[in-house]
Amino acid sequence: MAEAAVIAEQPLRQFCEGVLKKLGVPAEDARITTDVLVVADLRGIESHGVARLGRYVAGLKEGFMRPTDQSRVLKETKATALIDGGQSLGQVVGKRGMDLAIKKARDTAVGVVAVRNSNHYGIAGYYSLMALEHNLIGISTTNAGPLVVPTFGRTSILGTNPISLAAPALKEKAFVLDMATSTVPRGKVEVYNRLGKPMPHGWAVDETGRSSTDPKRVLTALANRLGGGLLPLGGEGEDLGGHKGYGLALMVDVLSGVLSGAATGLQVYADEKRPNVGHFFMALDPAAFRPLDEFRRDMDRLAQELKDSPKAHGQERIYVHGEKSFALMEKHRKAGIPLDPKVVENLKKIGTDLGIPWGTG
Amino acid sequence: MAEAAVIAEQPLRQFCEGVLKKLGVPAEDARITTDVLVVADLRGIESHGVARLGRYVAGLKEGFMRPTDQSRVLKETKATALIDGGQSLGQVVGKRGMDLAIKKARDTAVGVVAVRNSNHYGIAGYYSLMALEHNLIGISTTNAGPLVVPTFGRTSILGTNPISLAAPALKEKAFVLDMATSTVPRGKVEVYNRLGKPMPHGWAVDETGRSSTDPKRVLTALANRLGGGLLPLGGEGEDLGGHKGYGLALMVDVLSGVLSGAATGLQVYADEKRPNVGHFFMALDPAAFRPLDEFRRDMDRLAQELKDSPKAHGQERIYVHGEKSFALMEKHRKAGIPLDPKVVENLKKIGTDLGIPWGTG
Repeated sequence: MAEAAVIAEQPLRQFCEGVLKKLGVPAEDARITTDVLVVADLRGIESHGVARLGRYVAGLKEGFMRPTDQSRVLKETKATALIDGGQSLGQVVGKRGMDLAIKKARDTAVGVVAVRNSNHYGIAGYYSLMALEHNLIGISTTNAGPLVVPTFGRTSILGTNPISLAAPALKEKAFVLDMATSTVPRGKVEVYNRLGKPMPHGWAVDETGRSSTDPKRVLTALANRLGGGLLPLGGEGEDLGGHKGYGLALMVDVLSGVLSGAATGLQVYADEKRPNVGHFFMALDPAAFRPLDEFRRDMDRLAQELKDSPKAHGQERIYVHGEKSFALMEKHRKAGIPLDPKVVENLKKIGTDLGIPWGTG
Repeated sequence: MAEAAVIAEQPLRQFCEGVLKKLGVPAEDARITTDVLVVADLRGIESHGVARLGRYVAGLKEGFMRPTDQSRVLKETKATALIDGGQSLGQVVGKRGMDLAIKKARDTAVGVVAVRNSNHYGIAGYYSLMALEHNLIGISTTNAGPLVVPTFGRTSILGTNPISLAAPALKEKAFVLDMATSTVPRGKVEVYNRLGKPMPHGWAVDETGRSSTDPKRVLTALANRLGGGLLPLGGEGEDLGGHKGYGLALMVDVLSGVLSGAATGLQVYADEKRPNVGHFFMALDPAAFRPLDEFRRDMDRLAQELKDSPKAHGQERIYVHGEKSFALMEKHRKAGIPLDPKVVENLKKIGTDLGIPWGTG
């Protein structure tokens, strides 16, 4: 991989917003969609950052992502709501869903919002993070296109179905778990393919359903729909708990897909021109259980206990989830966001096609 | 291991209830506590079944488990509650917590109950299963004594902190995920130790924090508090996602321990005479989102899609979580519950000490 280009945050935002607005997305919705992408890059999750802008451009051009927000609340109780995303941008629908969960949690201590008929919403962590500003616990999950093979299977049925939970601390950084339920994302297999390196066992299976160390074989089988795909967290079979990762992926599909009435499993992208992605959002008010300060103080204590505990041979540091991303965020805000030159090239091409100047330096 | 003794369900229940009643537990609470243990055995989770009766006997005798229910609701809103378990039996407090979450979900579509000052509550799945009778989704998590080593650490700080979610289906069995967030439970390391077999990498680390295949070394280090312990789901380091399993274990401690104000991490059993276990219960009404029949039908469809999908080379069947346990339950109800002869011996000894006849055949 060539050395990364470093791009400043603000011009990158302006560029992405410009592209989206040019395709008919209203300014505020362009700002939201861009924010979800750029926050992913800031937090070091390049796979879900501006590198994906091209997909949204394609979705908007081809019409399976609607530029203006078509979402509406179909059903509502004091603590719950069902939203139909109306094929709008996943980020816009997602933010609306989490905003509503937060509002309900502020009123009734807990809010649960399920969303159907949405599109790819970016990083799950963006939505759980939203709860922190209100001193709430935030939870967010989504289903996605099939990439993950169930234990003892040989074709991908489930998405990488991420789980995110964020909880506020006091002096420590907030706890932010944001994890795909597969061992690794597809992007990691692609990196090994580019490097021509064998993968560890436990990442992926080939078209026979057996663990493979050959990234090219796995990607080729996937691309030609011959079978194979990513392994759930815990790897092949049950020896290292692969059935648990599979169960977590399925749990996410129950909460995101079945609860909302979105598509599930193979059906999420069965009609490529009409994806039906489902999301799940929840906000929970710790102050309904105990004084907020006590909750936050105990979050600190738990984090400190983990971080202060003895390190494994050869290791210098134990992390708490979210810590690395908050540090990266601070760094990237100051020094700029490193982007793969190919990503920059693609972004520039999008800009040229739409007449949006790259203008980042 | 010697051949298992097979014990009929009813006399086993009578025996356990007799033991508990003899120690001052009221009849209904003895029935509940026994039910949680026997259901674990029926579902094939021997590690959490009647094999643990001895621990409850010890807890009741030594006084850190109170025979009568001391639990009380400390704080309550329409959708949430905080319960202080008052050091009562974890099963009695757990059932009370989940009953309250269910009641709230029936009234307000969602109920969340956090519990502090409790004891070991048995299998997490018992409580999520309770929701199914009401056509609700049930969720249950608990923290536990330290056994799991954080990624890059070398001492166990977190418990095996299980996650359970149950959701009703129509013709298919309900989806019941009930998983420890470690790769394996300690019991599995003990089995390999008895057999003198090396363990796979990814199960446990020794006192240096490095993955070990030597069950004796791991158990000895744990017993002497030298360090080491179980690895989180995903194994050692980050290559196979060990940080994700660690994150899930920590998420469970946030929900069960920090939210409730119970102890967390190392503190859960810091005072062996006064454990402070925390639980989290949630019930969610799918009918608040969409017609119940549609929800249940789509649960079936997702399960069928997974089960009907092509099998890996050498595999004959893909399972959905809970399926194996429901089949075992049916089998054990008819043919009796297989118990390790050592477990039977220990139970008989408990009976002799307390004057409760074993009387199971």
